[in-house]
Amino acid sequence: MSLEKLTRRSWKVLWWKQIMILKYTEIMIYYPVFGDRQDQYLQSCVSEKKDVEGLCHKYIYNMYHNVRFLDDPVAEKKCIIPCTPLAVVKVLEYVGVYNKILEYGNRLHGRTITIVNRSEVVGRPLAALLANDGAKVYSVDIDNVQEFSRGDGLKLSRYHAADTTFKLEDVLPLSDVVITGVPSPNFKVDTSLLKEGCIAVNFSSAKNFNPDVRDRASLYVPSIGKITIMMLERNLLRLHDYYST
Amino acid sequence: MSLEKLTRRSWKVLWWKQIMILKYTEIMIYYPVFGDRQDQYLQSCVSEKKDVEGLCHKYIYNMYHNVRFLDDPVAEKKCIIPCTPLAVVKVLEYVGVYNKILEYGNRLHGRTITIVNRSEVVGRPLAALLANDGAKVYSVDIDNVQEFSRGDGLKLSRYHAADTTFKLEDVLPLSDVVITGVPSPNFKVDTSLLKEGCIAVNFSSAKNFNPDVRDRASLYVPSIGKITIMMLERNLLRLHDYYST
Repeated sequence: MSLEKLTRRSWKVLWWKQIMILKYTEIMIYYPVFGDRQDQYLQSCVSEKKDVEGLCHKYIYNMYHNVRFLDDPVAEKKCIIPCTPLAVVKVLEYVGVYNKILEYGNRLHGRTITIVNRSEVVGRPLAALLANDGAKVYSVDIDNVQEFSRGDGLKLSRYHAADTTFKLEDVLPLSDVVITGVPSPNFKVDTSLLKEGCIAVNFSSAKNFNPDVRDRASLYVPSIGKITIMMLERNLLRLHDYYST
Repeated sequence: MSLEKLTRRSWKVLWWKQIMILKYTEIMIYYPVFGDRQDQYLQSCVSEKKDVEGLCHKYIYNMYHNVRFLDDPVAEKKCIIPCTPLAVVKVLEYVGVYNKILEYGNRLHGRTITIVNRSEVVGRPLAALLANDGAKVYSVDIDNVQEFSRGDGLKLSRYHAADTTFKLEDVLPLSDVVITGVPSPNFKVDTSLLKEGCIAVNFSSAKNFNPDVRDRASLYVPSIGKITIMMLERNLLRLHDYYST
């Protein structure tokens, strides 16, 4: 493993000649680089064979479109999923939110989940992943609340998102799981609005739940950083497995 | 195993002399015998050491009071639980309603469950069992809807029951699990009132759900008779294990 510190000027040359094509088998970029839309362009410059972060267009497209395998219909190579959303999924699997007796792909059927964050990096992909797995997801940002779901009886093959007139305080009492990722210590979920026995998960570096959340939630996951790192390693091993020979 | 057919007149003598004390190691009575309160008296005549049905006063008392072991604090001998309610519990464990990551005794925390039946044989003990395990239970009969729960944060050590002003149509859309036991083919749960992705369980010999329940529920358990028989065998083995030496 090696860390390359590139100046913005040296970027292009190094990028194409050394990094993308020759030198490294896997690549991770420490964002933000430009801090604007160019970063999204950079994400898609990373070859899908080297993209441990799962941020290139193909992986993002597949995730939103509920395409789970790179090699349908053989279905042996699962797509790479961005690390932080994947870490939340793995946490939810571990804490029993996924119902293992249901069919793979539908294991969140019947769960109502609120996600407070709709960033392109975590909140929106996470809402899509959970809705694609069968949940009814309320995706909350500063402007509004959207509902992501596969409809009645999961009749849609991938999620559909729609604006609602709900506010955060309307959806919290309905939610079996509340996931927060607001990067501010001033934002706190009002514990009294949580459904008794819900599961609370925070992926922000700030603490978005008050300490009394433990009195109301059946489970509280205060951070997921270590699982995110584990998912990065998982993606690394998958790519090595898929493409090293 | 042997079947004794007793006349009502011969009952008392045979009961005490032969059955209770001497002849059999385990006893099961095919109710109704008198079809009135005398049956409840008979239930409690069965020694706790022979009571495979779990209907004697001690087991019923322990169940309602959330006393789980016969030998606290050693806690090696679990109490005998009546077969049909226990069968429903086992079904709910199997289909993922119990969250195994939560502490034993609290594994239904966060689940809302409606039971349409409040008989002394199944509905009420089942409501107590599920509420003692942490669920919020709506117990519905022809007169009203009662709520059984251990309160906010499961702060009560055993369930508390309270009358509500809800009707069946109010609680169905809130319920993660709907359990029915109405002994009439005319009673049907309105599928459109069920929560998307709920789990539907019928223990009545009549079908209390319409066929379209499968379009809305994530899982549908149409009957539990075979599990009930299995629980009877389980109780038999437990009693043999506890008292045969």
